[in-house]
Amino acid sequence: MRRVAVLGAGHTKFMFDSPQTEIEMLAEASMDAIRESNLKSKDIQAIFCGNVLGDFSEGQGMVQSYLADDIGCFNVPASKFEGACASATMAIRDAFMWVASGFYDIVLAGGTEKATAMGTSLATRTFAMFGDSRYEYPAGFTFPGVFGMLAHLYSDQYKVPLKKLKEQMALVSVQSHYYGKDNPNAQFRKEITVEQVLKGFMVTSPLQLLDCCPFSDGAAAIVLASEDIAKKLVAKPVYIAGVGQASAGKISSQYKYLPRIRSREISVKQAYDMAGLGPRDIDVCELHDCFSIAGIIAAEGLGFAEFGKGGELWEKGETKIGGKIPINISGGLKSKGHPIGATGASQVYEIAHQLRGELKDQGRQVEGAKVGLVDTLGGDGTIINLILKVD
Amino acid sequence: MRRVAVLGAGHTKFMFDSPQTEIEMLAEASMDAIRESNLKSKDIQAIFCGNVLGDFSEGQGMVQSYLADDIGCFNVPASKFEGACASATMAIRDAFMWVASGFYDIVLAGGTEKATAMGTSLATRTFAMFGDSRYEYPAGFTFPGVFGMLAHLYSDQYKVPLKKLKEQMALVSVQSHYYGKDNPNAQFRKEITVEQVLKGFMVTSPLQLLDCCPFSDGAAAIVLASEDIAKKLVAKPVYIAGVGQASAGKISSQYKYLPRIRSREISVKQAYDMAGLGPRDIDVCELHDCFSIAGIIAAEGLGFAEFGKGGELWEKGETKIGGKIPINISGGLKSKGHPIGATGASQVYEIAHQLRGELKDQGRQVEGAKVGLVDTLGGDGTIINLILKVD
Repeated sequence: MRRVAVLGAGHTKFMFDSPQTEIEMLAEASMDAIRESNLKSKDIQAIFCGNVLGDFSEGQGMVQSYLADDIGCFNVPASKFEGACASATMAIRDAFMWVASGFYDIVLAGGTEKATAMGTSLATRTFAMFGDSRYEYPAGFTFPGVFGMLAHLYSDQYKVPLKKLKEQMALVSVQSHYYGKDNPNAQFRKEITVEQVLKGFMVTSPLQLLDCCPFSDGAAAIVLASEDIAKKLVAKPVYIAGVGQASAGKISSQYKYLPRIRSREISVKQAYDMAGLGPRDIDVCELHDCFSIAGIIAAEGLGFAEFGKGGELWEKGETKIGGKIPINISGGLKSKGHPIGATGASQVYEIAHQLRGELKDQGRQVEGAKVGLVDTLGGDGTIINLILKVD
Repeated sequence: MRRVAVLGAGHTKFMFDSPQTEIEMLAEASMDAIRESNLKSKDIQAIFCGNVLGDFSEGQGMVQSYLADDIGCFNVPASKFEGACASATMAIRDAFMWVASGFYDIVLAGGTEKATAMGTSLATRTFAMFGDSRYEYPAGFTFPGVFGMLAHLYSDQYKVPLKKLKEQMALVSVQSHYYGKDNPNAQFRKEITVEQVLKGFMVTSPLQLLDCCPFSDGAAAIVLASEDIAKKLVAKPVYIAGVGQASAGKISSQYKYLPRIRSREISVKQAYDMAGLGPRDIDVCELHDCFSIAGIIAAEGLGFAEFGKGGELWEKGETKIGGKIPINISGGLKSKGHPIGATGASQVYEIAHQLRGELKDQGRQVEGAKVGLVDTLGGDGTIINLILKVD
């Protein structure tokens, strides 16, 4: 197994109601990634792509194949992955293996989604099919329902009074908007206050509007290559040092562990072990804050805080630049936006730029960051983690 | 890269209107594959799964994750692939790489589909989104439309009069039913005649009803393992000696080559080169006869006949047991059935059984077969090929 590097990365603006198709958005991000890698389309040997709702939002499957043709990667193998919100991270982890194994030298991986076309209410109902649609969805388990329940379980189990937990949760969203305002690709670029979060309308108790990330349209893509090629092409290759993935069953089948997401602990251990690193080595992290409570739960599962203490990280400012573990300096899913099948690629894009030290101009550079962690959650607890580092 | 073997394989009956869910069908096929491999669920390290229409037919995505939980493969990484009809073959080729690279030793790969729930007419329209849905579907390019056009182009380009071509096409379907009647997993187990094909109602000129494969419900799965493990567990490991994959763009963007599917020629060359073999080395082949003309075009693209001469293989009986290249001795998509996201795994199941010499009882064993070829077509020309062999 040889080392694999992220070369260039591309990212559309995340937004409501994009005028582009999913294929057009991914083509834009892909061409930017290819150009930034000092490559041409013909150099790409294979494509790995995440997309989830395309069949519903545009009536278009097989986006990977049309993308290949549209960006001039004629007849290259192109595979599409569906792992709900973690689809692009799944694609990238898989692409990593094809390069690490020596089968391919240069590949493209990314994801694209138009999640706003059907409106938030219908999208929420449609997207619930990526939970258990047979027994749990009819019982109320849309994703807001799942994470609302987890917040109550969290409060109960860790003896964090709901009022206090809600203030901690609000701080997660407030911080995301604080950094997202400076991210030109972010969907929401304005600050919000704790008071605004706590006065928002109730979506699913105890989650209020600003505890919830939006649906978004957008795409992101990266080029992966072997170490020797990377060193020839770019000044500062970002290596994928560790990968992890774990599935979960129905949310009800996880009852022994909830609100801990056991699959995250399994997945991130794989990534840490492979990289020979631990939570203390992570300089910057993009994690899956689809809901504010999800951000707190993720921070604990990744090893940044004891269980029940995750919210304190935000309270103490440890998740900001200069803190112990800067989290979601991109704005996270909450402020940057959440185009489902693209989110994992967007997280990798962000971490790659942090590790290359290219975010000074945007005022959100984690100085000296050398190791970054990506955390994506799909459906009822499929987790995929990637550890990126620069030498 | 180490050698990878197919150990056990499982296969549900293919049928109209299965009472099982997609997850239940794939669980049945998976448990059979695991048992036949002399393994237990806990031995499976990762899952790779094809599924296409599940969101529409059952309102259930993420089937890979629920499958993992349901069959006792708790928290293993489980990835889902969408490559239209080639989804399961895509999953298997990918699974192959994870074992060949040494990352995993034992994995499960397969596919599942309920394609009959919405009825043939709606399924045909829905499935058209796996072609180009923006420009070509509105112009009439459902998949019957695409292959009807290819039949006319074929007749025109190779100067095979349409009447003669239709008789050749009829023979493809007749042979599929001849063998399918003996396959206990097949959806249609009765012989048909050339006269019946030619008297069937017109679906899309010149394709009549019995030129077209059905939609089906069903699942199939295989276990893949490294050579050393395979040799300990099963009497006759079937090795994956070569893999190939190539995408294609819109059908209109392929106009220079049609009715040749150029992506097939690129894909199968990859597989042949990797295996160090050629068309003459293939003892038995399962190819993608979604329509009778598709079978003829595939046989040519795989190198079994000159372009324009594929139909003669069937006329001369060369595609039967005892002929030059036995094709679709399972009954093919036409008689065995075509549960979209499961078809590739079903093809591998068939070839594995042929190479292990286990079909004598069913009266359809290709005696002494040592090398087999799998060919699956997804959407507008994504092709995936696998070459299997026994020592």
